[in-house]
Amino acid sequence: MKNLFYQPAIESGVHYLDPEESRHAAKVLRKKTGDTIHVTDGKGNLYTCSITEPRPDKCAFTIQSIEQEAKKSFRIHIAIAPTKNPDRIEWFVEKAIEVGIDEISFIECDNSERTSIKLERIKKLAVSAMKQSLKFSSAKINSIKQLGDFIKTVTAAEKYIAYVDQSNPDQLARVANPSGDYLVLIGPEGDFSPAELGLAIETGFKKVALGPSRLRTETAGLVACHTLNLINL
Amino acid sequence: MKNLFYQPAIESGVHYLDPEESRHAAKVLRKKTGDTIHVTDGKGNLYTCSITEPRPDKCAFTIQSIEQEAKKSFRIHIAIAPTKNPDRIEWFVEKAIEVGIDEISFIECDNSERTSIKLERIKKLAVSAMKQSLKFSSAKINSIKQLGDFIKTVTAAEKYIAYVDQSNPDQLARVANPSGDYLVLIGPEGDFSPAELGLAIETGFKKVALGPSRLRTETAGLVACHTLNLINL
Repeated sequence: MKNLFYQPAIESGVHYLDPEESRHAAKVLRKKTGDTIHVTDGKGNLYTCSITEPRPDKCAFTIQSIEQEAKKSFRIHIAIAPTKNPDRIEWFVEKAIEVGIDEISFIECDNSERTSIKLERIKKLAVSAMKQSLKFSSAKINSIKQLGDFIKTVTAAEKYIAYVDQSNPDQLARVANPSGDYLVLIGPEGDFSPAELGLAIETGFKKVALGPSRLRTETAGLVACHTLNLINL
Repeated sequence: MKNLFYQPAIESGVHYLDPEESRHAAKVLRKKTGDTIHVTDGKGNLYTCSITEPRPDKCAFTIQSIEQEAKKSFRIHIAIAPTKNPDRIEWFVEKAIEVGIDEISFIECDNSERTSIKLERIKKLAVSAMKQSLKFSSAKINSIKQLGDFIKTVTAAEKYIAYVDQSNPDQLARVANPSGDYLVLIGPEGDFSPAELGLAIETGFKKVALGPSRLRTETAGLVACHTLNLINL
């Protein structure tokens, strides 16, 4: 399998591709009637399909077989402050999906340099990254919330806040348990404020370090995501 | 310390900053005579300096004290195929330096889509990344070589070739030993050819996987780099 198409409504009987994907199948890849394509619903299912009508605006197919993605024993949710340069946070989304992530939230912090994100653009990018890395589950992408509001509502068994300080807190790689339901908070360039750190700790978050290097926000996010994937390898 | 300046010739008595860095110190940060700045030579030393003349073209200083970076017990060298889109390989260089890397080489492979790199641009970017992450050792950046020529000349105690196949080879995170002298080969989007894989294995490279996900070249490079940093945490 070299190409993966996305049709989130396939289970509800939508057996054709959206215009952009139809164009890709019919025009770019020149798929013909009877050709096999692979379609995912982003919900863990891979459909092997046969094209019935390769229209470049509405490429229709029938389902030949269904395969389910192997269930993972862990779940990764990262809540991150948008970077001043939006490219950097988009880069994080793309790379985290490649490496493996289940949910991404955006948080507005005391030291945030940017308090908005282009949610639709990021969701689209997330789908591209899923297809590119041949995954069958799309990451859940949430809109931005104030950190205080966010941490009041979230539930996760293992809650961490990445924080750079000189008292050398515990390393995420050492404190996180395999097969966990993780949530990691990643702050803006100026880091979380002491008040935010206090609030998180009160709410059950544990302060962790992400290695000895000073990392940019988006790098810290990816490093946290990769660390949690590695301890579950 | 919030800013780090770079003067590779400081040990040879060059006690002023280059024009670009002088401008940054004098014009952007408005440093004055008597102000303290931190300068690294990229060879593991941090100099605490006092400005004697804040000229925007040649900012002069005297050395107050020298501090050496703690020696690491391991060494990471990654040899990677340039990506079609040069931004992606530059991104790899920046992120690998943030996470921690000692040497980067570029390799031309059978399936390479690009066989050249902008070496001077990448070296400059590497220095920026070193300063940004407040490190005092610059990564060695080598020009591009044919894979065959490259693997004949390199020496490293632990040599790995990242290769995607279905026989599920050993995971880098499991086979690499702490405190190692590592070299990891990362192939182009079409991966290494069977001939290249055979040649590498003959030359003492071990085939490894980088987790269950299909990764782009630049992501694979960063994941390898971070994995080796993590097992030495």
